[in-house]
Amino acid sequence: MSLTQLFQNGLLAAVALLLSAHLNAAQSYSQTGQLVEKKRFELERFTTFAGKTIKQLHVGWESYGTLNEAKDNVVLITHYFSATSHAAGKYKPDDASPGYWDNIIGPGKAIDTDKYFVISVDTLANLNAYDPNVITTGPASINPDTGKHYGLTFPVVTIRDFVNVQKALLESLGIKKLHAVVGASMGSMQALDWATAYPDWVERMISVIGSGQSDAWTTALLEKWAIPIQLDKHWANGDYYNAAPPTQGLTAALMFITQDALTPTFFNKTGKNLAYSALEKGPLNDIRQQHSIVKWLKSRAEERAKLMDANHLLYLVRASQLYTAGHSGNLEEALSQVKAKTLFLPSFNDLLLMPYLAKNASSALAQHGKNTHYETLSGDLGHLNGVVGIEQAANKISAFLADN
Amino acid sequence: MSLTQLFQNGLLAAVALLLSAHLNAAQSYSQTGQLVEKKRFELERFTTFAGKTIKQLHVGWESYGTLNEAKDNVVLITHYFSATSHAAGKYKPDDASPGYWDNIIGPGKAIDTDKYFVISVDTLANLNAYDPNVITTGPASINPDTGKHYGLTFPVVTIRDFVNVQKALLESLGIKKLHAVVGASMGSMQALDWATAYPDWVERMISVIGSGQSDAWTTALLEKWAIPIQLDKHWANGDYYNAAPPTQGLTAALMFITQDALTPTFFNKTGKNLAYSALEKGPLNDIRQQHSIVKWLKSRAEERAKLMDANHLLYLVRASQLYTAGHSGNLEEALSQVKAKTLFLPSFNDLLLMPYLAKNASSALAQHGKNTHYETLSGDLGHLNGVVGIEQAANKISAFLADN
Repeated sequence: MSLTQLFQNGLLAAVALLLSAHLNAAQSYSQTGQLVEKKRFELERFTTFAGKTIKQLHVGWESYGTLNEAKDNVVLITHYFSATSHAAGKYKPDDASPGYWDNIIGPGKAIDTDKYFVISVDTLANLNAYDPNVITTGPASINPDTGKHYGLTFPVVTIRDFVNVQKALLESLGIKKLHAVVGASMGSMQALDWATAYPDWVERMISVIGSGQSDAWTTALLEKWAIPIQLDKHWANGDYYNAAPPTQGLTAALMFITQDALTPTFFNKTGKNLAYSALEKGPLNDIRQQHSIVKWLKSRAEERAKLMDANHLLYLVRASQLYTAGHSGNLEEALSQVKAKTLFLPSFNDLLLMPYLAKNASSALAQHGKNTHYETLSGDLGHLNGVVGIEQAANKISAFLADN
Repeated sequence: MSLTQLFQNGLLAAVALLLSAHLNAAQSYSQTGQLVEKKRFELERFTTFAGKTIKQLHVGWESYGTLNEAKDNVVLITHYFSATSHAAGKYKPDDASPGYWDNIIGPGKAIDTDKYFVISVDTLANLNAYDPNVITTGPASINPDTGKHYGLTFPVVTIRDFVNVQKALLESLGIKKLHAVVGASMGSMQALDWATAYPDWVERMISVIGSGQSDAWTTALLEKWAIPIQLDKHWANGDYYNAAPPTQGLTAALMFITQDALTPTFFNKTGKNLAYSALEKGPLNDIRQQHSIVKWLKSRAEERAKLMDANHLLYLVRASQLYTAGHSGNLEEALSQVKAKTLFLPSFNDLLLMPYLAKNASSALAQHGKNTHYETLSGDLGHLNGVVGIEQAANKISAFLADN
């Protein structure tokens, strides 16, 4: 096997793990790594940004490192669209893989748990509703008023609602400010919204593969993920909890998400491993058959879909579409409120949240005289350079957190 | 209205026309322009590349300019995915718009109909099956053996089959070689396949927004257009001709195609005109409502879907996925057979057939010592720079055809 093949196979293995139910990018995970525990946070009554009430709200959370006496060493990690609060560590020593950012979160790592109390929270309507390690409230939950699944009667939730649930949890722990908030993709939306909504809380903000708001392009692109679910006859306007779920539509959505999050380079390396060719005999002779690359994409999506809820995906799409940092309708003014030092880490070949989105946000902050930094991630993985490839920014993140 | 707004509105108007049933980019169309007539070509029996038989095959064609006595002034235009053979002129003086490349095809234009006999042919399984000006054979046709619509019993057809039908038509007119073959997107696939399959026929080949083959990335991307149709309950495994057709799935496919063919810049200009904002009240308060940009995209797709057939879209996706110039499974060897002088005109910001695809094909030809040229199109329209924005290359095309 050549070095190139070894590299490709390693890369494929990493992304295969990422695409599996247990997200993981850290091949270097040590068996001495930290064990973590999922905890539960409840709110009797929560009012959404749009003014609706959610009763008996519950979300899961986990933490790494120790909260100091002054309670001022907190780093909040906000998770991306298809992730959970499992950012680092393992639940059990024999877990197949640790949390998705384990290579930058831990003792002596970029986000050093010897210094910081690192905490992460499952979002509302978390995609992985059926993962036993996820606790979330969303359309798949039982409405305490009716005893039935919410379905589409669950109120629309926003990135701000994810932030407000996190804030309530932090306050319950006696925490009043964040050394930093750090998130990738949909997590970056929460991170920057934190910095605009609660500027006195947030001292540092890191937006990885992120944006300042969802522009018309992004909102249309995100709608593409919702459409196949709504077309699936089993979706039944979201009321499928006592019947077969819309698995085909959910699988299609995950296929689209996977391609949007990667690149031609990655797909063509995968194709090479599959012995893909344009003129494959199956699809040439039968309109019902598919190319090897399509079968590969579909089988991984089917595997991931098992722990996910289709309505939850629709609600996360909507939260992401509604995102504008500050949630005021005036991004410029919202950014002018930011007190945090900020760092933007877009990926140069990101086809999902293209680098111009982070550039625009960082430039607007700079125009308001804010302390803002911008550096581009590299790698063959497009959007996922910010997840699988985050270790390249370890020194940058470490120095930013230490004010070096 | 500012100059910028005027430009934006002009651009929007142009693309709105392009997205309407009558494709058009030529706002400069003169009422003195040529009138054209759709003609019919029939083959009693046609054998596909995969060895299947199609009986009583018929396709439409049209031509501009005059065939000279030597029959050596022929320029074949091969059309793109959602287009027809209507490349230039109008059928009636009061048509809303002329053919899609009217600004480069006509008397005194880049492809000069005072010099060249320009001819174009509707593909098999043409998408616009219900356009009265289109003649095509595909899954929506009646199978003469059964008296019923083919549906999915229609054989898989390839880019090579489109080429072979064109060749049969040209031969029926006594034509034995092409001064040039010129096509955009799926048309470029036909153009380059012509040059590899029948090198003695093709003197010049122009590939606009094109590729040498469908790599794993492109094949997966194209599958995305097929998926919503197959999810639509009305699709019924392609057997919907005596019932309601899968209009929602077809509409979704056209929404995806439109976004893939354009750019963030274009969508965000459109969003500005729609007064798009991330935090629109409708989608904030109701999960069933959609953002203005999504409604815009959907309404245009619904309009276009009226003249189109969903199964035909699946067959065009498949033909495009199976494409490798030469259809031999060995692209390098196929390209080594080319005798034509070639010109590749990719668009720098194309997100559908990215410029690397044309670059790879042109580079491979250069390595075989072929006479090949490569120039990048500019503009805000991504893939559609090669359709709406083709006039920027008028001089280049004109000189290439004249061997200047």
